[in-house]
Amino acid sequence: MQLKHVLEAQQFDKKMLKELFTLSDLMKKILEKGGSTLLKEKILASLFYVPSFRTQFSFESAMMRLGGEVLSTDKAESFSSELKGGSLEETIRTMGYYSDVIVLRHYESGSAKRAAKVSSVPIINGGDGAAQHPTQALLDLYTIERELGGVDGVVIAFMGDLSNSRSIRSLCYFLAKYSGIKIYLVAPPTLNMREDIIQYLKRHRITLYESYGLEPALEDLAKKVDVFYVTQTPVGSFGDRVDDYERSKKNFIIDKKVLKSMKRNSIIMHPLPRQDEISQEVDRDLRAVYYKQIHYGICIRMAILCAVLGKTP
Amino acid sequence: MQLKHVLEAQQFDKKMLKELFTLSDLMKKILEKGGSTLLKEKILASLFYVPSFRTQFSFESAMMRLGGEVLSTDKAESFSSELKGGSLEETIRTMGYYSDVIVLRHYESGSAKRAAKVSSVPIINGGDGAAQHPTQALLDLYTIERELGGVDGVVIAFMGDLSNSRSIRSLCYFLAKYSGIKIYLVAPPTLNMREDIIQYLKRHRITLYESYGLEPALEDLAKKVDVFYVTQTPVGSFGDRVDDYERSKKNFIIDKKVLKSMKRNSIIMHPLPRQDEISQEVDRDLRAVYYKQIHYGICIRMAILCAVLGKTP
Amino acid sequence: MQLKHVLEAQQFDKKMLKELFTLSDLMKKILEKGGSTLLKEKILASLFYVPSFRTQFSFESAMMRLGGEVLSTDKAESFSSELKGGSLEETIRTMGYYSDVIVLRHYESGSAKRAAKVSSVPIINGGDGAAQHPTQALLDLYTIERELGGVDGVVIAFMGDLSNSRSIRSLCYFLAKYSGIKIYLVAPPTLNMREDIIQYLKRHRITLYESYGLEPALEDLAKKVDVFYVTQTPVGSFGDRVDDYERSKKNFIIDKKVLKSMKRNSIIMHPLPRQDEISQEVDRDLRAVYYKQIHYGICIRMAILCAVLGKTP
Repeated sequence: MQLKHVLEAQQFDKKMLKELFTLSDLMKKILEKGGSTLLKEKILASLFYVPSFRTQFSFESAMMRLGGEVLSTDKAESFSSELKGGSLEETIRTMGYYSDVIVLRHYESGSAKRAAKVSSVPIINGGDGAAQHPTQALLDLYTIERELGGVDGVVIAFMGDLSNSRSIRSLCYFLAKYSGIKIYLVAPPTLNMREDIIQYLKRHRITLYESYGLEPALEDLAKKVDVFYVTQTPVGSFGDRVDDYERSKKNFIIDKKVLKSMKRNSIIMHPLPRQDEISQEVDRDLRAVYYKQIHYGICIRMAILCAVLGKTP
Repeated sequence: MQLKHVLEAQQFDKKMLKELFTLSDLMKKILEKGGSTLLKEKILASLFYVPSFRTQFSFESAMMRLGGEVLSTDKAESFSSELKGGSLEETIRTMGYYSDVIVLRHYESGSAKRAAKVSSVPIINGGDGAAQHPTQALLDLYTIERELGGVDGVVIAFMGDLSNSRSIRSLCYFLAKYSGIKIYLVAPPTLNMREDIIQYLKRHRITLYESYGLEPALEDLAKKVDVFYVTQTPVGSFGDRVDDYERSKKNFIIDKKVLKSMKRNSIIMHPLPRQDEISQEVDRDLRAVYYKQIHYGICIRMAILCAVLGKTP
Repeated sequence: MQLKHVLEAQQFDKKMLKELFTLSDLMKKILEKGGSTLLKEKILASLFYVPSFRTQFSFESAMMRLGGEVLSTDKAESFSSELKGGSLEETIRTMGYYSDVIVLRHYESGSAKRAAKVSSVPIINGGDGAAQHPTQALLDLYTIERELGGVDGVVIAFMGDLSNSRSIRSLCYFLAKYSGIKIYLVAPPTLNMREDIIQYLKRHRITLYESYGLEPALEDLAKKVDVFYVTQTPVGSFGDRVDDYERSKKNFIIDKKVLKSMKRNSIIMHPLPRQDEISQEVDRDLRAVYYKQIHYGICIRMAILCAVLGKTP
């Protein structure tokens, strides 16, 4: 398997996803043996214009487990400051001399594509603005696939700030490739999924249900879903209407009561960090797989690094 | 030698200390040969909620000298910001997937223990609030042991801000294990050693003398001690009474005059960085061992990393 | 080839420069093969009191390509804060225990020499105040040598903020060693080259021409030069007179028109980052070598690391 860049969910077809997941399974075995020297002499540049410790450390750990080296900054922003000049393009072209692959987190939608246009080395999109976060979505999809045994026919509820979650945006692009998917959107009205994604899902014949997360509804919903995908509802997104926030937040909590209604073979996912959208009492339930996602994330990222560097075992 | 976590001085008994120091001697030899590959494929996560360049680089250098890799941040604080949510516990559980051992520096007393409770990998306390700094105290004890040939019967003067020095707190817990120890406490009244440690030392039959560092007293003291352990007296701790600070500071300076009164086989220690509590003219005296402490620190930390990872040579 | 420290341009004679460039050619070949393990078990400390991503990553990448390890901080400033105490000297002495070589970027002229005085390991000056930036100048000289086939007799125009460019200062010290050099200084009056360098060049019989970059002059100049060395003209340096800045900036732009007048075998250099002193339309011209400088920079820094560590292939 060989990839040039990893920029957005749309670049993957089902065959590629299957290949990537098989490669990730292999990486899981390499991790269990303690690592490999497959990427010896390769350097990953971790170029974070916005800090994101999970994404950054996940990639850096993945690179190290494969014997590679890491050049790292979470202050890339200061390189391209207006004071100093120096565009994203210039930074990317320069980094291409220092490293063999770049993972880029940037605050602007579309920046990963801009970077790929001028880069002499593979670009991995580590999240660009509110646009996409394809490697997070890949690990989410991989989690669903491996925990539920497949993606076709899955019933999934997205819950929280659906408007600003690029992980969920990217994941929707993936889900649209599968058949029989049903999606529940559970969000306060101001934070609902953006219209472009809703239209995209409809065009791909995904069944969509919208709901506003009143508590009895959540317990009813619990009976139907295979996946609860929960994300944060940041205070900031409510502006002055903090009361609205406090009121709505209570309707978006996965707790023991909700857990009771859930199917045995279902899972609760969260990209972390979380506040209190999932009660701590849920953590010990086997259906809570958010830490497993972290583990799957390293496997996926090891596979991606191998694929873009053309070094599969 | 195998350790699970390194959280506080109290967890070590004399037998363990002896074993650890023997292991550190071995590490000294490994350093002289240029390093080892004992910790190949292992990753240390350097998780600093408060920056501390000596502790951080000492551990990171130790890990590299043993062939291991390092994931590093001195901005861990921003991971768990209130804005983003994400507790210390969540961060620790997550880092456990990225690394094989975590060194944690945190601003809250007790945080290392909280971390150890949920961690899947060994936690090394790199300083938690004003509570403890066990690896600094271990290197201090190792310095005394190796420079003076033993710890029993040692006469030691602690000087400076004894109230807020977690290194001295931790060292006191260690000294209490030895016999015949005499301790002089030389601090301005507002910065004296906290009552819990004083009581602890008394319970363990350590002879304690308190003094307020008037200059003639310092020269008298110099004749009696085997160890002058000097620490900073930060300006901030005097609040508005900066005059008091300036006045008292003058009484807490180790200079040539004090040096003259000191025994031949005695040592001056300091955890660094220092301001002017030790005159620069003292640096060239063989009894000034503060840079040796740096060296002993790497040996001790190499030994600790080996011990918690179960990889002793 | 063995060097103790790399502190300033003046320490190199022509024989050493030739040796260093031959070593750099060798490093180029090592890079093409993917790297080497020449500096295995060695640790570079990247000690940046002022961030500089090109210099930092260039050295760190160079070290990794040679199999070495990197301890890195771009916040060294906070180690020596007044609050914490701890002088540059203390920090350097301490880092000498953690690493085998230190690259130091500091805001104060002369800091690299101060560091070298107390250091137990080689110090590489990565830029000190407005004084010098010898490794940048070495890569610039190496670029001229390799792109034009030699340095003697070269006609070079320096353009932009000549007053504050430590790279150009250092490069002038090198050029003074060669014969038949002609230098054009093209800068707004307030940003002209400092008198000490002008006197130094005159003493070494370098032919100097000064000009203020009126546009027609620039096209005339283009016909004469072998090298256009362009640097930023920062807004800040004009204080309140931003109008002056805007007016003068227009006269200091290398664009297609200037390109047309340039000789076939000439080059355009820039230490990057750039603002708009070179139009983007120039980038694709083969005479634009600013990205080649990045590549030469890694080779030079690999050679320097080998030379100070006494490990030449």
